[in-house]
Amino acid sequence: MKRLIVSTFAIAGVIAGLVPVRAHALDEVVQKQTFAVPSYATAAGAIIKDVKIGYETYGKLNAAKDNAILVPHFFSANSHVAGRYKPDDKAAGYWDAITGPGLPLDTSKYFIIGVDSLCNINTKDGVTVTTGPASIDPGTGKPYGMSFPLVQMRDFVNVQKLLVESLGIRKLHAVMGLSMGAIQSWEWAATQPDMVERLVAVVGSPVAGPYTIAMVQQWADAVMLDPKWNRGDYYGKDEPVDGLTMAFKLINLQARQPAWADQTFGRKPAVAGQDPAAAPGNLFAVEKWFADSSLARAKTADANNLICLARANALFQAGDKPTLEDGLAAIKAKVLLLPDHDDLLLFTEYSRQARDILKKQGKRVEYHELEGPNGHLDGVLNIAAAAPLIKPFLDQ
Amino acid sequence: MKRLIVSTFAIAGVIAGLVPVRAHALDEVVQKQTFAVPSYATAAGAIIKDVKIGYETYGKLNAAKDNAILVPHFFSANSHVAGRYKPDDKAAGYWDAITGPGLPLDTSKYFIIGVDSLCNINTKDGVTVTTGPASIDPGTGKPYGMSFPLVQMRDFVNVQKLLVESLGIRKLHAVMGLSMGAIQSWEWAATQPDMVERLVAVVGSPVAGPYTIAMVQQWADAVMLDPKWNRGDYYGKDEPVDGLTMAFKLINLQARQPAWADQTFGRKPAVAGQDPAAAPGNLFAVEKWFADSSLARAKTADANNLICLARANALFQAGDKPTLEDGLAAIKAKVLLLPDHDDLLLFTEYSRQARDILKKQGKRVEYHELEGPNGHLDGVLNIAAAAPLIKPFLDQ
Repeated sequence: MKRLIVSTFAIAGVIAGLVPVRAHALDEVVQKQTFAVPSYATAAGAIIKDVKIGYETYGKLNAAKDNAILVPHFFSANSHVAGRYKPDDKAAGYWDAITGPGLPLDTSKYFIIGVDSLCNINTKDGVTVTTGPASIDPGTGKPYGMSFPLVQMRDFVNVQKLLVESLGIRKLHAVMGLSMGAIQSWEWAATQPDMVERLVAVVGSPVAGPYTIAMVQQWADAVMLDPKWNRGDYYGKDEPVDGLTMAFKLINLQARQPAWADQTFGRKPAVAGQDPAAAPGNLFAVEKWFADSSLARAKTADANNLICLARANALFQAGDKPTLEDGLAAIKAKVLLLPDHDDLLLFTEYSRQARDILKKQGKRVEYHELEGPNGHLDGVLNIAAAAPLIKPFLDQ
Repeated sequence: MKRLIVSTFAIAGVIAGLVPVRAHALDEVVQKQTFAVPSYATAAGAIIKDVKIGYETYGKLNAAKDNAILVPHFFSANSHVAGRYKPDDKAAGYWDAITGPGLPLDTSKYFIIGVDSLCNINTKDGVTVTTGPASIDPGTGKPYGMSFPLVQMRDFVNVQKLLVESLGIRKLHAVMGLSMGAIQSWEWAATQPDMVERLVAVVGSPVAGPYTIAMVQQWADAVMLDPKWNRGDYYGKDEPVDGLTMAFKLINLQARQPAWADQTFGRKPAVAGQDPAAAPGNLFAVEKWFADSSLARAKTADANNLICLARANALFQAGDKPTLEDGLAAIKAKVLLLPDHDDLLLFTEYSRQARDILKKQGKRVEYHELEGPNGHLDGVLNIAAAAPLIKPFLDQ
């Protein structure tokens, strides 16, 4: 039995009124599947053998095979968009709140495909299938490490396209995602214009501007500062957990915004009665949260894959043309842009610029700014508030 | 001879029209002086012997000794507010553009005191005088390292007060500064209300909220991630330059904003013709700038002093009362708040909250948002644009 609850996230959104969201939006046990490519040639000309990526599907592909929606994931996620692997899993997929019958990612209408990227960072979570620096190089029998070829969003899309085509799909009803998921969706729409009918970009920009380049490169720099990183040669040895923890501290901070911290922690000490001003070891609650949550995150991630993924983000410009305008010119999809008003990672301004370019090119673009306390992460935590915008866009 | 020029910075400001700024605003050779305190008891109850801080003065103290303006410095600066040490110095003090006859910090009217903080980070620049972890502990004859007592903004102010009193000054015409200089000015106004007649806080907040706490603590974390930091015991050995470089990368990024990066670098490669997408070693110009400028900055800084200073910032709440409202209640100064509209380090919102608290308490507060391409650093680089706001406030 599904139970209707009122999402507290929805209340904070741009949307007036309440959005009913199911506690288990997708009431299905889902399963990770693996797609394999024996040999893949990267956009930069390297060959990668035995490429594998994971994927999950929800809903059914129709006979015409024209009801598929592809959902690439954000930087720190994987293809687990919705549902649970076991009925008693504590957490569902990241967009479970908008996936299920009657919801925007309507499993009674659409065939939804969540897909893993190359270089996915979650190599130790037991449910991610990816190919990247942590994978075994068939040529040597050892992990690639830093010898893994440079890959770009174009490559992520190319491998996903092989998966989509292997399912007999020639046209995607939509490609949509948040953050790096939106970035991949932009690349899909710009480089495969005849395959993508709709693009939904949540908190994502069609280009990594120089400020973003510097930001994501600092995540990689933090990892590389840890001596245990050892130029990428740490497999079977002590891993650079401290460097990864530092990287996740940066990511976790940039993915939020001050109002979230004010509401969640204020200036409370980590331990009641232990005033941080009284002794150097006394922490603020916010410090302890960042330390603990970042360490926990570091334990399931691979350092080299994070470096690889950060680089792919830094290199991104949709369409891979000399200018962004040229790159976006090919897009045929209808576009829905949902940036967050207080995004400190992929700033709202980037989406405004993208909207203006698309409008100037005469394309069909809808634009709404999400609001909420979570900054960039409103694209996950507050997505239910955007359901009344996403659903008609997908259904129209 | 002074030559009138039109500052290009002024054009980008909130101020309509052009502000004439002299090329050498303070046409004086200035000199660093040292103030010493034989024994200082910190707010937390520790004793520090032989405390020394540097200071510089511009203009003349009048007979009534009531024309002094104190200017504490920002995080990465020192007491060099204006002028040059030698006529052929390439750079002048950081607020030279608003210091000099006829300018807001009018040396024909006011006696301006630039003052070094405790734990100043610039221990190797040859012109900073400070006491902190890098100083020799008279008790051991060796650098304090991490045994240096915890110090707070309250301590910075207390030591500065001893300096001010040693000059015979009982009342300050104003205390003003930018960023951590504004933070110290807030603490002055809140804890020495009878001494401070005017407070000018440029890009500074009266409290470190939890988001700021997490941010500044990451600067310290970056330093501590470098194995050469060695728990603070690196004097006479290889110093943690890589960790410091990482910290300055973070600071340099947060002190700017995307528009600055867009205008300065775009997505240009560091070396023409070496496309970053073609090979892993090929950098973007923005990456190279952050790497080079942060390394240069790291070479004149002390790692432990940076950790000490970051902590003092994290601990800050003006007035040291249970609530910020209580802390600000004592203020008697007239207040001018000049936050930056696109500040990603000490967000505009903090200054808006401070303004609202002061107004509610019936205090005299003026509020204007700076604009410009530099984010937080508009408080330095674009300060000339605010001259028409600062000058009448100081002169009234």
